[in-house]
Amino acid sequence: MEDNLENLLEKKSKEAWEIYLPGFSIDCAVFGFHDGMLKILMVKIKGQDFWGLPGGYIKKQESLKEAASRILKDRTGAKDIYLQQFRVFGELNRSEGFFNGYDDTLWHKQRFISMGFYALVDYSQVQLMVDDLSNACEWISIDELPEFMMDHRNIFNHALVTLRKQLNYKPIGYSLLPEEFTMPELQRLYEIILGKKLNRGNFYRKMTGYDILDKLEESRKGGAHKAPNLYKFNLEKYNLALKNGFKEGW
Amino acid sequence: MEDNLENLLEKKSKEAWEIYLPGFSIDCAVFGFHDGMLKILMVKIKGQDFWGLPGGYIKKQESLKEAASRILKDRTGAKDIYLQQFRVFGELNRSEGFFNGYDDTLWHKQRFISMGFYALVDYSQVQLMVDDLSNACEWISIDELPEFMMDHRNIFNHALVTLRKQLNYKPIGYSLLPEEFTMPELQRLYEIILGKKLNRGNFYRKMTGYDILDKLEESRKGGAHKAPNLYKFNLEKYNLALKNGFKEGW
Repeated sequence: MEDNLENLLEKKSKEAWEIYLPGFSIDCAVFGFHDGMLKILMVKIKGQDFWGLPGGYIKKQESLKEAASRILKDRTGAKDIYLQQFRVFGELNRSEGFFNGYDDTLWHKQRFISMGFYALVDYSQVQLMVDDLSNACEWISIDELPEFMMDHRNIFNHALVTLRKQLNYKPIGYSLLPEEFTMPELQRLYEIILGKKLNRGNFYRKMTGYDILDKLEESRKGGAHKAPNLYKFNLEKYNLALKNGFKEGW
Repeated sequence: MEDNLENLLEKKSKEAWEIYLPGFSIDCAVFGFHDGMLKILMVKIKGQDFWGLPGGYIKKQESLKEAASRILKDRTGAKDIYLQQFRVFGELNRSEGFFNGYDDTLWHKQRFISMGFYALVDYSQVQLMVDDLSNACEWISIDELPEFMMDHRNIFNHALVTLRKQLNYKPIGYSLLPEEFTMPELQRLYEIILGKKLNRGNFYRKMTGYDILDKLEESRKGGAHKAPNLYKFNLEKYNLALKNGFKEGW
């Protein structure tokens, strides 16, 4: 382990005990859609071999949600991100062995109960930032995931399941797709998240039934075939459905 | 405030700092179904005017889920309860003013981030227990709720919304209904949770579509009308659907 890293960790540790609530952390599963792939934001901490989800702690005078927004803003530069808590990870020893060799007073060696947030961000609006404890911060396709540190694989899995469930009762796509898109592009997003092919006719029927899309007058130019229709989300209806869920079910 | 209560709180506070993880609590929304009413388990803490949800803390060597199970068992005597985390409440000052007049070293006066769990219990299996910090522990119909302490009204509201959403993708009823029941009885449970009337034919169609019920050979005896069919849950299918969700949606 590098000597510099040890000094840095000790300095960070001292600060952390002053600034943050002990014993509680936040981990963020940040999804973006790019080049027809669903990607997740991952970081690599100095001195560690594995990758993890970006995370942080809660300031003593900060609400949980404020903390999650701040953590994401520090990593991505993005504000007003669609951010939802999805599960708390409170197993014993979830970080055991991760800071072996360090003193027990090290902030990072505590037992942390961690709150998982997931976020959907506009890939083009994001500027990734590496902080002084990490070597790398990158978008990684969910089809090519590396080995995860600690229980972060489990946190990621729960985030993806949450995202999949959410497709059934809430709209998705506004922060993931460009402003104007075709129905096949929207379908492709759903298929990538769900990890399976969908029937084109059923998708069209169900999606228009949700009544959150506006069909544009113009269609996409270029290409040999009939130009496909363009759509955009009707933000008023979209946000209402985001708040109340689709008018389906019981 | 009674002198006894003050001494008791101080004693409890000292113990708590030794046993539990600081800064983190659990609050439980426990639902039961009885006399055609959906009821919630509430407690009244000594020296306080308002009612609250039963809760507690996490031992230093206990997982989050173990803690929630222990807390519920201590209140209800019931084990193996269907128990799910649904949301974390992490606002600043959510308990502000609640222990005014006490020293800042009092355990109970900390800023607590609280994890909400909801539970569905078999009303007939429950034996309510009053602990030494509370005056009362009672089932209260959700149509006749008293004033809540702290932010417990908000926690209750979120629990009810979660229960309603869950009706759309998971089975419900096994721990709430007697073993054998009629379709109108099951419908009544759904109506009470949703707070609205449902169409009888639609309910029958949707419910049988879920494929979690076994129709019994015998029907209910007595009464002037045609004896109604009896059903019970097929536990294998029920538990599978509980784990994976209904095979609906995308």
